[in-house]
Amino acid sequence: MYDGPVQDLIDELGRLPGIGPKSAQRIAFWLLEQPQADVERLAQVLSTVKANTHLCSICYNVTDSETCRICRDPRRDQGSICVVEESKDVVAIERTREFRGLYHVLGGSISPIDGRGPGDLRIAELVRRLSDPQVSEVILATDPNLEGDATATYISRLLADTPGIRISRLASGLPVGGDLEYADEVTLGRAFSGRRYVDQGV
Amino acid sequence: MYDGPVQDLIDELGRLPGIGPKSAQRIAFWLLEQPQADVERLAQVLSTVKANTHLCSICYNVTDSETCRICRDPRRDQGSICVVEESKDVVAIERTREFRGLYHVLGGSISPIDGRGPGDLRIAELVRRLSDPQVSEVILATDPNLEGDATATYISRLLADTPGIRISRLASGLPVGGDLEYADEVTLGRAFSGRRYVDQGV
Repeated sequence: MYDGPVQDLIDELGRLPGIGPKSAQRIAFWLLEQPQADVERLAQVLSTVKANTHLCSICYNVTDSETCRICRDPRRDQGSICVVEESKDVVAIERTREFRGLYHVLGGSISPIDGRGPGDLRIAELVRRLSDPQVSEVILATDPNLEGDATATYISRLLADTPGIRISRLASGLPVGGDLEYADEVTLGRAFSGRRYVDQGV
Repeated sequence: MYDGPVQDLIDELGRLPGIGPKSAQRIAFWLLEQPQADVERLAQVLSTVKANTHLCSICYNVTDSETCRICRDPRRDQGSICVVEESKDVVAIERTREFRGLYHVLGGSISPIDGRGPGDLRIAELVRRLSDPQVSEVILATDPNLEGDATATYISRLLADTPGIRISRLASGLPVGGDLEYADEVTLGRAFSGRRYVDQGV
């Protein structure tokens, strides 16, 4: 136990996810050695971040404005919507530079165990966006796990009859750079069932 | 890249020691989901901790007052001073409940590589404390590494001629609960040279 404020800081840091007591102590003493302006900047960002953060009124991505940077960008393909669980997934996909359309953040996945059904996700909001005749493609990019698969299956059935909309799901398969022998059997099975035939000429 | 304040928060968190970009992102989104009061409390502690933290005017441990809790406690043995490198070491030793005396925090160790000589540590301040006739024992509890050993050796030579003061160093040896075969050779060597003879009766 340290005296007063140092212990308070260690306690508060220790409540953060993934920060154990040892890390909390290390960070606290590191902070004590930093210039006051640097520590103050972190404090400032912390105390204002919630008030300054909203969900985009179109796609529900986190943003500091009424709509997010991606929805505001006229160069994005307005005809394609990629459906993800969380804002973090938007950033992960943006990093690939493979997709130039818009997003829709569901706010989670269907998980009966956690008591989350379709009604707890922003699926009605997605359906409403599809009434825009510009939209011609929905890419379901939920997590490749049980809940994510259930969510993608639910949405693809719901949208199956929507005219003029092509629906796709991200490919499952072997992670690039990995060893085939270390792949788990489900992933390897998906890689087999999703195999692509090679153009062999004649 | 996230919009505005969320990215600012991730950047600030990512500057903390031991927090990588993935952890910073996870903590940022976790914070966004917490009640504003909780986040505000962390911000508050951060912005006040430096101003409210001082070094004890006697032992140089971190404290929120003129002197630290240990130096203020009349039940502590005023005759024994345990010399450590950092405030963290005080807490580690307090946790053992083996020591009921006072501390002296040097503020580091002698490290020529990092350009820290004896003059950069609070050794003169330690010598001054020893002029109190109450003090009869100095325990050198610097880290069991090259720099800590050099520091302990320097201080023990400096104090060797001080009348009425017994000087000791913490024992080196096998960590309790470990496997002998996994001990490194230096530790095992210290365990041998520091072995204690067992009372065998007659």
